[in-house]
Amino acid sequence: MPTEALLQQYGADARLCPCANDQLTLVFSQTHSFDLVELEQLLEAVGWSRRPVRRVRKALTNSLLKVGLWRHDPRIPRLVGFARCTGDGVFEATVWDVAVHPLYQGSGLGRQMMAYVLEALERMGTERVSLFADPGVVSFYQRQGWELEPQQHRCAFWYAS
Amino acid sequence: MPTEALLQQYGADARLCPCANDQLTLVFSQTHSFDLVELEQLLEAVGWSRRPVRRVRKALTNSLLKVGLWRHDPRIPRLVGFARCTGDGVFEATVWDVAVHPLYQGSGLGRQMMAYVLEALERMGTERVSLFADPGVVSFYQRQGWELEPQQHRCAFWYAS
Repeated sequence: MPTEALLQQYGADARLCPCANDQLTLVFSQTHSFDLVELEQLLEAVGWSRRPVRRVRKALTNSLLKVGLWRHDPRIPRLVGFARCTGDGVFEATVWDVAVHPLYQGSGLGRQMMAYVLEALERMGTERVSLFADPGVVSFYQRQGWELEPQQHRCAFWYAS
Repeated sequence: MPTEALLQQYGADARLCPCANDQLTLVFSQTHSFDLVELEQLLEAVGWSRRPVRRVRKALTNSLLKVGLWRHDPRIPRLVGFARCTGDGVFEATVWDVAVHPLYQGSGLGRQMMAYVLEALERMGTERVSLFADPGVVSFYQRQGWELEPQQHRCAFWYAS
């Protein structure tokens, strides 16, 4: 469980993210606000092209769920992971923009973030979750129980909760 | 163009839907409210299983766009077609629950409804639209320029506007 101070900083839905390096405190949050420039820097760091901040702001506003993975600091937490969902939160949701900063990859944080996202969607009562995965991360999702829909360049997955 | 009276009844975004039977006036609307029982009856008529009204209401509230195709009547218009979209309306949207009542199928109303939906999404500035089609309607979407993603039982399509 996060401490009272962490819950105050990151919101009642905050959750500690277990992490091999015990010098780090990593926290999932659905309510901590994003600096949109920092968010786009994170997404650029994983190889995506930059998008206009004004359009990103509108997309976030229209999203069902935004999850940040924060490297805790009492004053200036750093955004090291991100995912968001669109959808109605009842019959379906779709996961987009799943990213873990390259410096923090390779120790299971992506897997833990997806588990946090799916649990949040399930708590809402969402029946089915989809995502569109780039070819390079197909096996990442398959290992976590996602079912492959197609066999093309870009792949659709369905996940029934 | 719809008449002033139709725009008042169905909203400023209303559009006449051309139709072979000149005894009928069919109107697309994004703002005319739905009777949820009538909506579920329509979706049942095309073969889908009934869903709890409370959950349908929440899903509609969380949807980006709801389109009704109405058989015009000044007092009691009938819902003869429906489609809704979820998504952020910026980078992506997904089309769900596309239905035309069996009595009104076979004369291009589904095609016209999809064109109306895509135009509304494009006007919002949506970059990419997806949908998940049942096997029986794959060719319906392919004929309209949708690109098939997979080759499985349930198929994902991407459409770049």
